[in-house]
Amino acid sequence: MNKPFLIGIDLGGTNLKTGLVNTDGKILEKIVVDTGGNKDIVLKQIVNSIRNIIDKAGKDKSEIIGIGIGSPGLVDSEKGIIRGLTNIEGFENVHMKEYVESSLDIPTFIDNDVNIMAYGELKCGAGKDTMNIVCLTLGTGVGGGIIIDGKIYRGSSLSAGEIGHIPVNVDGPKCICGGRACLESYIGKDRIIKRTIEKLTQRKESIIPKLVEGDLEKITPKIVYEAAAVGDMLAIEIWRETAQYLATALTGVINILNPEIIVIGGGIANAGKYLFDPLTDMIKERIFPFLAEKIKIVHAQLGEEAGIIGSAMLVKDSIFN
Amino acid sequence: MNKPFLIGIDLGGTNLKTGLVNTDGKILEKIVVDTGGNKDIVLKQIVNSIRNIIDKAGKDKSEIIGIGIGSPGLVDSEKGIIRGLTNIEGFENVHMKEYVESSLDIPTFIDNDVNIMAYGELKCGAGKDTMNIVCLTLGTGVGGGIIIDGKIYRGSSLSAGEIGHIPVNVDGPKCICGGRACLESYIGKDRIIKRTIEKLTQRKESIIPKLVEGDLEKITPKIVYEAAAVGDMLAIEIWRETAQYLATALTGVINILNPEIIVIGGGIANAGKYLFDPLTDMIKERIFPFLAEKIKIVHAQLGEEAGIIGSAMLVKDSIFN
Repeated sequence: MNKPFLIGIDLGGTNLKTGLVNTDGKILEKIVVDTGGNKDIVLKQIVNSIRNIIDKAGKDKSEIIGIGIGSPGLVDSEKGIIRGLTNIEGFENVHMKEYVESSLDIPTFIDNDVNIMAYGELKCGAGKDTMNIVCLTLGTGVGGGIIIDGKIYRGSSLSAGEIGHIPVNVDGPKCICGGRACLESYIGKDRIIKRTIEKLTQRKESIIPKLVEGDLEKITPKIVYEAAAVGDMLAIEIWRETAQYLATALTGVINILNPEIIVIGGGIANAGKYLFDPLTDMIKERIFPFLAEKIKIVHAQLGEEAGIIGSAMLVKDSIFN
Repeated sequence: MNKPFLIGIDLGGTNLKTGLVNTDGKILEKIVVDTGGNKDIVLKQIVNSIRNIIDKAGKDKSEIIGIGIGSPGLVDSEKGIIRGLTNIEGFENVHMKEYVESSLDIPTFIDNDVNIMAYGELKCGAGKDTMNIVCLTLGTGVGGGIIIDGKIYRGSSLSAGEIGHIPVNVDGPKCICGGRACLESYIGKDRIIKRTIEKLTQRKESIIPKLVEGDLEKITPKIVYEAAAVGDMLAIEIWRETAQYLATALTGVINILNPEIIVIGGGIANAGKYLFDPLTDMIKERIFPFLAEKIKIVHAQLGEEAGIIGSAMLVKDSIFN
């Protein structure tokens, strides 16, 4: 192969990560910059980062097969348009594919960041050797990506995989999506913190107030995880509750989609066994028994690099398949 | 085409329906018999029905492209095995494809009855001109079938589409599947009757006791529908509640799969506007606004003939595609 390299870009609200990746999904060079505050700055940053990483790696533009970009928010992967990115000023209906291709003359593909993560885990992470994956990111929100028969499943309006917006109760709290009782409205980062504070106001036996020096506003999921790790019962219960909401939604996902594996990443997933152990037990109790024998529920493997690797692999397969 | 005809079979617990179908999905001849009481009788009935319908239509075996069979229960469509049919004695792990092919020497395909129904609606019914459908049957249980990109989606263990077993609450009644709070455990036929009786014992202003001559054991979904049709508020509320459970599950389905259309059939769907009107409103309130503009929620069109037409169309496409 004359063109053995790919560029994968993870466009986040905080960081813009750019990687030079080989065709096996190995990152050879990486550049991380703070994401700029408006659309024009960000577009320039992307093109500059690509030029810089090619230089830094001592390569020539002609050696690059293609560029993949993963972005949060609603992405039209067919037309190459990012529909909206709330935390970058003016970032609406950005024709990203067109812009990058006209600037650099290298084939460019874009997709939603959780689809990209799922694709990365399929090709180089927890989902290797499988064809049907459901991927979740647990963070500020709850994102989802679905792989069917080895391909990203996008649905009829390119908006499939919104696992965070599966209702887990007939009625419940209003969600930012306009719905009610969505998974995200129980286990999004802020809701975990809110549930912790509520429990702390009901009973006092917990190490958490000490960990935040009495300032409950300093509570983060990481604090709740650290408390669980030293045996704090209130924190363990928070993760158990979180697992129960998640198990309810994922029981539905498994009974509908019958995937081989569920891959869970994002900051909240760092709660590790305090989340995964009850989650796995609860799911296996609720799904069909013959599925319980087969389904695997695992932690994502690519972590911070999922966006770079996933977008690079997606470009490779989009061009060669 | 030298072989212009197909045979579609709908193997139900009560009736065995066999149809001779042309390649456009039109039923030219139909034979319906009571399903026999044990495995051996049923297998003979199937082969005899096929021979009889070919004779009745004045055709020759050589004119038949293939045979399609839709069956309830767990079906291994790849191996052509029906894993279990509870209301026919001894009907376990029946190698149906092998049996029919060795008896008649005509290519034979089998699949789950709701998958078959979904395929029929895709090709000749409510889902014509679409590629992504979710199909439900509401009856004793709640069945589901999913069409993605014009093909039946079966999942990694051939058990996808179990929409009846989506949890609609974090906790709730035990379901026959082993899970809890499944959609079916709220809106299966018996549960609708039970909810009606419960409401009647709480308050009396309803026409329903009169319709069943005071014997509440005679209540059927049809009675509750008839009561709604004459403006009975208690009956209208039962359908509204049923719609709410269904809307909760389907909001999840739409946010995950992003289908073009939801097709709903089965006896319970005969409640018509008393079910569909609140259902459509509730779903559109809960899903993403941009999806609410696009999604269609419609009544199945093929009714009793969905099994014959769907299995015939599946055979045609399996052989020619």
